[in-house]
Amino acid sequence: MNELKVIAFDADDTLWVNEPYFRETEDRFCELLEDYLPHHSVARELLQVEIRNINLYGYGVKGFMLSMIETAMELSQKTIKVDVIEKIIALGKELLEKPIVLLDEVEDVLQTLHGKYKLVVATKGDLLDQERKLRKSGLEHYFHHIEIMSEKKEADYQKLLKHLDIQPTEFMMLGNSLKSDVLPVLELGGHAVHIPYHTTWAHETIDSTIEHKHFKQVSSIKEVLSFLLK
Amino acid sequence: MNELKVIAFDADDTLWVNEPYFRETEDRFCELLEDYLPHHSVARELLQVEIRNINLYGYGVKGFMLSMIETAMELSQKTIKVDVIEKIIALGKELLEKPIVLLDEVEDVLQTLHGKYKLVVATKGDLLDQERKLRKSGLEHYFHHIEIMSEKKEADYQKLLKHLDIQPTEFMMLGNSLKSDVLPVLELGGHAVHIPYHTTWAHETIDSTIEHKHFKQVSSIKEVLSFLLK
Repeated sequence: MNELKVIAFDADDTLWVNEPYFRETEDRFCELLEDYLPHHSVARELLQVEIRNINLYGYGVKGFMLSMIETAMELSQKTIKVDVIEKIIALGKELLEKPIVLLDEVEDVLQTLHGKYKLVVATKGDLLDQERKLRKSGLEHYFHHIEIMSEKKEADYQKLLKHLDIQPTEFMMLGNSLKSDVLPVLELGGHAVHIPYHTTWAHETIDSTIEHKHFKQVSSIKEVLSFLLK
Repeated sequence: MNELKVIAFDADDTLWVNEPYFRETEDRFCELLEDYLPHHSVARELLQVEIRNINLYGYGVKGFMLSMIETAMELSQKTIKVDVIEKIIALGKELLEKPIVLLDEVEDVLQTLHGKYKLVVATKGDLLDQERKLRKSGLEHYFHHIEIMSEKKEADYQKLLKHLDIQPTEFMMLGNSLKSDVLPVLELGGHAVHIPYHTTWAHETIDSTIEHKHFKQVSSIKEVLSFLLK
C-alpha cells in the first residue's frame, strides 16, 4: 500500500443514503399505476424502460423521471391522466431535494485519511445533483475534487487515471458496487475495497465472489483504516 | 501570453453547432401547443419554466425535456393530450441524437495548438450527452480531458483552476458566451477570448462591451492563432 496516492470514494450508498430514496420514489410511482398493473409488475416494467434508456440518458434523477413518465404512458396505453404525470414530476423534484444522511463512521474515516492521501469522490449520476449532494453533505472540504463519471467501466477508470496522472497501482476505489466500483478497477491493476450496503439497485448487482490480491472486502467503512494507516 | 499553460474551449456553439438544434426543437414544441397559445407566447412560457427549474435541473437536454412537459401541462391547464407528451419525449430523444457538425476552422486551430498548450473542453450540460458529443466530434484526441461544469460562474472556474493546479494567469478560456465564458474568467484574473456565434440562448446574453487587458474579441476562431502562436 506504500505507493498508494489517490483514494476515490463512491458517493451514493457509500458516503450517504441514496438507494432507499429511489426505492421509496419507485414505490409511490407503482402506487400511482396500481389501477393498471400490480406493484411488482410496474416495478419490472420501469426497470426495463430505465435500462433501455440508459445509453441515452445516463444515470441520475432526471433520466429516472423521464423513464417513469414513459413507463406510465406505455403501461396505460396512453390513457394515463395528466394528473399522474404531474405527480411523477413532483416525485422526481422531491427526490432531488432529499436531505443528505451520512452513513455511519464516514466522517471519522475521511478526517483520519485527510492529508495522508489525495481523496476524491468518483460517482455516476446527474452532475448538478451530485455536486449539490456533496455540498449539502458537509464533506466537500475533505476531497480534492469530485469526478462525475458517465459510466464506471474500465475505459472510464482509465480516463480517470489519465486525468489524475497516476499509475493504476497508485489508485484505490472504495464503494458498495462490485460491478461498478470493484471489478473494473481490479482489471486495470488498481486496488479496490467493497463496502456492501443493504439496498443495491438491481442493475448494479452481480453474483460472484472475488479473490484478488488487490481486493479487500470490509463490513464497515471504518475497517479500511486497518490497512490504510499502516 | 508566455506563461499560458491551459486553453479551455467551450463546446456548444464554439466547437460545434448546438443552439440552432435547441431552437428547432423549441419551434416544433411551440407548434404542438399552438391550439393553446401563439408561438412566441409558448416560447416565452417555456423560457420562464426553464429558468425556474435551472437550479434543480441544471443545463442540458434532459432538464429541457422535463421543462417542456411541465410547460405543456401548465399552458393547457392539464388538458394536454398524452400524445403530445409522448411527442415531446420523442423530440428530446431526437435532440440527444443529432449529428455533430463542427464549426469552421475548429479542427485546424486545435491541430495547430495541440502539443503547444494543454487543451481542455470546459462546458455546461448533461455529462453523458457532452461526452457523447465530444466522441462523435472526432476531436477528443486533441484534448487532455473534458470538464463538465454545472455552472460557469466565478466559483466554478476557481474550482476548475484548483483542479488543474494552475494560476489564473496561466489559463485562457475561449467561448461564445460573454456571460459564461468571458466575464467570470476575467474577474478571476484569467484570460478570455470571445468568439460570437449567430444564435445565443436568451439566458446567456448580456448587454455590454468589455475592455480589459486580458480580453480579446475575435470574429472567427482562427484569429486566436495570431496571438497564441507568437
